[in-house]
Amino acid sequence: MDKLNIGIAGLGNVGSALIETIEENKIYFLDKAGVEFNIVGISAKTKNKKRNFNISNYNWYDDPIEMSKNDDFNVIVELIGEERGISYEIIQTALKNNKHVVTGNKALIANHGKELFKLASFHSLALSYEAAVAGGIPIIKTIKNSIKLDKIKKISGILNGTTNYILTKMQQDNMTFDDVLKIAKDKGFTSDQESKLDIGGYDAAHKLTILSTLCFGSNLTFTNNHVEGISNIKIEDINFVKKLGYKIKLISESCLIGNKISNFTSPKLVSIDNPLASVDNALNAINIETHHLENLFLEGEGAGGKPTASSVLSDLYDISQNEKFDNLGFKIDNLQNFEKYSAENAINSYYLRIMTVDKPGVLSSITNNFSDFEISVKNILQLPENYESIKPIPIIITTHNVQKEKLSNVINKIESLEFVKEKITVLPIHDN
Amino acid sequence: MDKLNIGIAGLGNVGSALIETIEENKIYFLDKAGVEFNIVGISAKTKNKKRNFNISNYNWYDDPIEMSKNDDFNVIVELIGEERGISYEIIQTALKNNKHVVTGNKALIANHGKELFKLASFHSLALSYEAAVAGGIPIIKTIKNSIKLDKIKKISGILNGTTNYILTKMQQDNMTFDDVLKIAKDKGFTSDQESKLDIGGYDAAHKLTILSTLCFGSNLTFTNNHVEGISNIKIEDINFVKKLGYKIKLISESCLIGNKISNFTSPKLVSIDNPLASVDNALNAINIETHHLENLFLEGEGAGGKPTASSVLSDLYDISQNEKFDNLGFKIDNLQNFEKYSAENAINSYYLRIMTVDKPGVLSSITNNFSDFEISVKNILQLPENYESIKPIPIIITTHNVQKEKLSNVINKIESLEFVKEKITVLPIHDN
Repeated sequence: MDKLNIGIAGLGNVGSALIETIEENKIYFLDKAGVEFNIVGISAKTKNKKRNFNISNYNWYDDPIEMSKNDDFNVIVELIGEERGISYEIIQTALKNNKHVVTGNKALIANHGKELFKLASFHSLALSYEAAVAGGIPIIKTIKNSIKLDKIKKISGILNGTTNYILTKMQQDNMTFDDVLKIAKDKGFTSDQESKLDIGGYDAAHKLTILSTLCFGSNLTFTNNHVEGISNIKIEDINFVKKLGYKIKLISESCLIGNKISNFTSPKLVSIDNPLASVDNALNAINIETHHLENLFLEGEGAGGKPTASSVLSDLYDISQNEKFDNLGFKIDNLQNFEKYSAENAINSYYLRIMTVDKPGVLSSITNNFSDFEISVKNILQLPENYESIKPIPIIITTHNVQKEKLSNVINKIESLEFVKEKITVLPIHDN
Repeated sequence: MDKLNIGIAGLGNVGSALIETIEENKIYFLDKAGVEFNIVGISAKTKNKKRNFNISNYNWYDDPIEMSKNDDFNVIVELIGEERGISYEIIQTALKNNKHVVTGNKALIANHGKELFKLASFHSLALSYEAAVAGGIPIIKTIKNSIKLDKIKKISGILNGTTNYILTKMQQDNMTFDDVLKIAKDKGFTSDQESKLDIGGYDAAHKLTILSTLCFGSNLTFTNNHVEGISNIKIEDINFVKKLGYKIKLISESCLIGNKISNFTSPKLVSIDNPLASVDNALNAINIETHHLENLFLEGEGAGGKPTASSVLSDLYDISQNEKFDNLGFKIDNLQNFEKYSAENAINSYYLRIMTVDKPGVLSSITNNFSDFEISVKNILQLPENYESIKPIPIIITTHNVQKEKLSNVINKIESLEFVKEKITVLPIHDN
């Protein structure tokens, strides 16, 4: 198609940036790619609002569903972002009415994408979602097109900008989680509602669900994820791990173990030699390991109007160029319902902070327990750190690889010792 | 096309890895992408040689030109790598005989690509070269497809693995250039012949030529490049810049300044906060700045059989999927002959090492000269560093942005002062 008739539902940061870029670059797009992006209609909750473009240039729809049915359009862009509700209805209606869809809605794709991709496939339509994962980083197209035939072993990354900003700020300015969260909210990085998804790790896990489908042909199944957020991260752990050569990052990682899908999102220690450790503030990054590539690393802006609009734009371009649409990189009938890999079986190395009273014999009692449970300790750090002798002192232990279940056993045992004064802090160490 | 009949000319690391991966993954490729990669013929200088595959499975051609003419094939893969000669002849013959071409030959594309792309366009054929730039990093497809409509402001990167290995090793092990070069040759990273292209910066400049065409629609014109290699880099400069928070990297950078193309490949100081600074050993990396993206950063293996074969594979997949071939991302008639931006006009900040006798008044005489020429100094470092007083001592100066021509004037002036004992070492500082 050399002309797309586009309807845009949702005029927040991304929708507005999209309209502005299409208005500015109409001639450039025609010239470079021979394609005309013709915005026909727009829809949003509030019509009268200060915007950087003139809404009277487009047909206004109070009801986006009506737009999705209308034959004036061949592409509907859904940028409202509800996990189901109106967003689902728009996409479903558009596909049923033979229109391509572009969306940035990760929660919806991760939770309810399955039916929608079936519908798109049935009607031979595009359902594109580059904007749903890692903002401006073209990770979907990289996996789906650029390295399509290269079997992927593992994908891991930093997929949520808000939590990465919080962890960076805690580390750089020695601030507590609560204080930085307040700044993030004040700066408008995250709202009360969004922050639950962000901080709880769910937003990153939504994105990981999509990536694990693209990488391994797993059916979109959000419940396959193990998710842990960052709200329990203490500034003292950030400082201790720094001494050991690590940073704490919210890492999402997906791979197949045997015939089970292992999807974990959790705070982890990342070695400062790992490129993920240098990904600070609101940046996102993804590392891919394939049968041909030891690492392919992509970093960029994970959110924001302009970067995300760039991803929507690239989906619109793709729709204009193709007649067949390979939405998931695998044939839809080949997607598999992998069993969920159990967290208790997971093998990892770990960081532990054990708060104990400061008296002779404590350290040896702890290390004896590790050796009784046959867990190999890599490093021990006993740090008095200006503590008065009456307060518990931290003993920091890092382990070699150990099964989570086995580690839990020794933790339970050590926590029951009378000189251990708090629940032990446990964080996995990212291994590549 | 769901079946490609492939001829491969050149059975070095990449050609061999390509054959092995196609042999291993035939069913996977069919299953995932519905495409059969059918290697029909192969050609190399030496027929009888120990290889990881059985050459008798394929038709052997002593003369690759014959293979390029033969109607048994619809794709020819050129992996011989001569800058012109037989490589050019293979590609030209294949295109004239209506066959698609995949190549990893950067020197050829950069120097003689223009005619070949015209020929490919005339016959509506693919001439694909993902393997020519940055090995396994899918940088060509990222620019040409994934961010196709996003106007690029600047591209910069580390595009040569051998020089990056040498600079990394010098820095990490405090070794001289000559000593590390010997190791690189012993390890087979570079041969006597290749090392001229690598160390002289020409290999990186070949790749930059290709990237500048993809980013800015500039005609492929190798002579537009300013090229400086790394053979003059001294270990003392590596150590001094470390104190200032930099590493020395061979950086290639392309942008348009006004209507002129600015293509520079040269050793530069890179701030340790820049992700390019963490790209060590033989890795490659590229940073892209666009109208939508402040940075999009890709890192991966820049050479080697398996990674580069992954890029060839992705080109073969593309050929199987498309009917129209957009080889350069711009319409061939829209490519422009930009004027070359003059090195003397270039504006940069700089690092200078001035070797002077150690006597009063020297420093003020030097800084007076900078202020006479209205060049703003950012940092001065005077380092005695165990020098005996009789030997010259280094004065390290970093400047703010200044035009190269203006800097040259002050350098000439200072070099003429009687207490300055050596030619001044000058290195630009990479600014983003």
